[in-house]
Amino acid sequence: MNDFDLMRSLTQKNETKIVMLVMDGLGGLPRELGGPTELESAFTPHLDRLAREGMAGLLHPVGLGISPGSGPGHLGLFGYDPIECLIGRGVLEAVGIGLHLTNKDVAARGNFCTVDDSGVITDRRAGRISTEECARMVGLIEGITLPGVEITVKPVRDYRFALIFRGSGLSPHLSETDPQKTGAKPLRVEPQDDAEATSHTADLANQWVEKVRDAIKDQHPANMVTLRGWSKEPGLPTFEDIFKLKAAALAVYPMYKGLANLVGMTIIQGLANLEDQLRSLRENWDSYDFFFFHYKYTDSRGEDGDFDAKVKEIEKVDKIIPDILKLNPDVVVVTGDHSTPAVLKSHSWHPVPTLIWAPGTSRTNPDVTEFGETHCLRGVLGQFKGTDLMKLVTAYARRQAKYGA
Amino acid sequence: MNDFDLMRSLTQKNETKIVMLVMDGLGGLPRELGGPTELESAFTPHLDRLAREGMAGLLHPVGLGISPGSGPGHLGLFGYDPIECLIGRGVLEAVGIGLHLTNKDVAARGNFCTVDDSGVITDRRAGRISTEECARMVGLIEGITLPGVEITVKPVRDYRFALIFRGSGLSPHLSETDPQKTGAKPLRVEPQDDAEATSHTADLANQWVEKVRDAIKDQHPANMVTLRGWSKEPGLPTFEDIFKLKAAALAVYPMYKGLANLVGMTIIQGLANLEDQLRSLRENWDSYDFFFFHYKYTDSRGEDGDFDAKVKEIEKVDKIIPDILKLNPDVVVVTGDHSTPAVLKSHSWHPVPTLIWAPGTSRTNPDVTEFGETHCLRGVLGQFKGTDLMKLVTAYARRQAKYGA
Repeated sequence: MNDFDLMRSLTQKNETKIVMLVMDGLGGLPRELGGPTELESAFTPHLDRLAREGMAGLLHPVGLGISPGSGPGHLGLFGYDPIECLIGRGVLEAVGIGLHLTNKDVAARGNFCTVDDSGVITDRRAGRISTEECARMVGLIEGITLPGVEITVKPVRDYRFALIFRGSGLSPHLSETDPQKTGAKPLRVEPQDDAEATSHTADLANQWVEKVRDAIKDQHPANMVTLRGWSKEPGLPTFEDIFKLKAAALAVYPMYKGLANLVGMTIIQGLANLEDQLRSLRENWDSYDFFFFHYKYTDSRGEDGDFDAKVKEIEKVDKIIPDILKLNPDVVVVTGDHSTPAVLKSHSWHPVPTLIWAPGTSRTNPDVTEFGETHCLRGVLGQFKGTDLMKLVTAYARRQAKYGA
Repeated sequence: MNDFDLMRSLTQKNETKIVMLVMDGLGGLPRELGGPTELESAFTPHLDRLAREGMAGLLHPVGLGISPGSGPGHLGLFGYDPIECLIGRGVLEAVGIGLHLTNKDVAARGNFCTVDDSGVITDRRAGRISTEECARMVGLIEGITLPGVEITVKPVRDYRFALIFRGSGLSPHLSETDPQKTGAKPLRVEPQDDAEATSHTADLANQWVEKVRDAIKDQHPANMVTLRGWSKEPGLPTFEDIFKLKAAALAVYPMYKGLANLVGMTIIQGLANLEDQLRSLRENWDSYDFFFFHYKYTDSRGEDGDFDAKVKEIEKVDKIIPDILKLNPDVVVVTGDHSTPAVLKSHSWHPVPTLIWAPGTSRTNPDVTEFGETHCLRGVLGQFKGTDLMKLVTAYARRQAKYGA
């Protein structure tokens, strides 16, 4: 029995309310050996209380030693094995700008690039054109049509755009056209298997590229495109199917709304900041069982390498904990989709400090008096894999039946 | 995606240098309840410093409760699942005396034994003849030839020898001839499947045994042989293929050179002791990314049941740590392929104290102030499987890309 079937067979509905607060890139590293991490430096009286009263541990979103991207990191938190449920770059890009994909869609990530008169790439990113310039370029190609397929092109950021073909009999098993270097021409899209659908889709893709070339050949600096990461919506079983949880996503950034959408959560639209998210949590409290509450800026400041700013972002989140507790949740989870230590300025493989607060079902935790990496190492939850989190959460929410008689 | 494919897709080259110091049979047990283990008894100021500054944990080379042989233990450290990548006894024996095998070879482990006039075994080990006597006996049979196959016989130790058939169309799926008791005749080699190659190889093996019988029937005490562990070189993907690491093995004993050779490491020849190994490490520093540095005598003294002597061997290794650090490695790993507690006089299943020292990417570890079983239990790495070690090592060496977008 796989994990999905196991959870399907065990989970049951009840009246409990669960809040999963994901502080993106939460885990960190000390600035100097023996010093505190970002989380350990932050003044977090409310998170410390939750760690003291609840259960703390360290979570490996994908596995030991693996640095997760946002997609795999969140899938792990949601209970989907990120190694088995790989989401293609094209889908992530589309989902990241809020596009909803169906099982008739094939998506690719596009780059605008610069080619010389002979068609050889001289700049793979067209001088990193601005998002505004990207939107203007998309305006020149979004009208391109091909028989039997509905085409969507949307600007993403800088030189990147999302491309979606919608139709029947399409396949994503296609090669990428980016030669990954300058001084070479863009490659043709080649089918990666022998299926009829695959050669059909490759033909469509090559025709589309031809038409794009004609449409923008006189533009500057972007006068050509490359396509990568052909993929389909992964068709994941829904959160409600697996866990019997009606789930709402309270996220500001499109990427995280998109990821929540892939697992069937309801996306609450129009949220711009923590205050919006809190208000929305209150307004929707009676309508859902599970709330995915995403905070982006802990990761952003980590990526910037700004230790002190990341500390401040953590402190901002700490201040909203009392407002969440006022709603009388049964389970509060605080975690991250990966670590983003400011000293590394990037996602890392270090396990993420995690707590599950669930009054009435917690073991005594005397070695944990605050929420931080070192205390979590001594916590009752130990070190565990991301995919185990939702098993623990549904258990602490008393939403699981006994396994076997 | 399996672990090899995952690592292949994530690892990347950089300039970092990694030293993996394997103290064979490192883990131990206290002499009396509550007392220190061998490692905890040893004065190891340099290893203690690495544990304090780095990350400590306990490694299960194969899995919980499994006592690994040298082959599986090392395969785990190298990132190869020892359950899936089983190396046959014949191959291990050949590799252990420095023979290089190809995919046209079938290897077996041979024992000289004593039979009476009716061919019944009276001593399965021929009175445990000396290695010298074994070599003399091999001299009597190494000239035996068979059509279409190249035959190699080499003495190993005491009554044991290695036998290799090289040719096309050979199969290792053969039964063993040792009846595992005295008072019975050696068994015939029987094919274990229906393949043509298998019955062909069984015929060859039986012909070879007949010729051996004739050649040594008048010798004493060894006048017959038994054959076990038919196997082929496992054809493992190389270390460089999986991890993109150019690796050198600095080992004194043939077995460990052989194991390193099976995963494609370069074997530095002619090393007789720690000083040789250190000198070779310095000389080869610029030519490789990864150094497997093996020390045998911690295991030997554990097998002897000599607690104090094992402590002294650990202290000898501690003294070379400063010399290793002078080379400015980016990552130093100290571990063992299994535990060999002196009180058990054998390999054991107890997890192995392990540290990863990697300046700049380590979490604070206040509960670990020295390198030993008890401190490692509180360490940041927790308890983990042998196959995860290389994932962690390549992560700490910054040689892994982010998984997914």
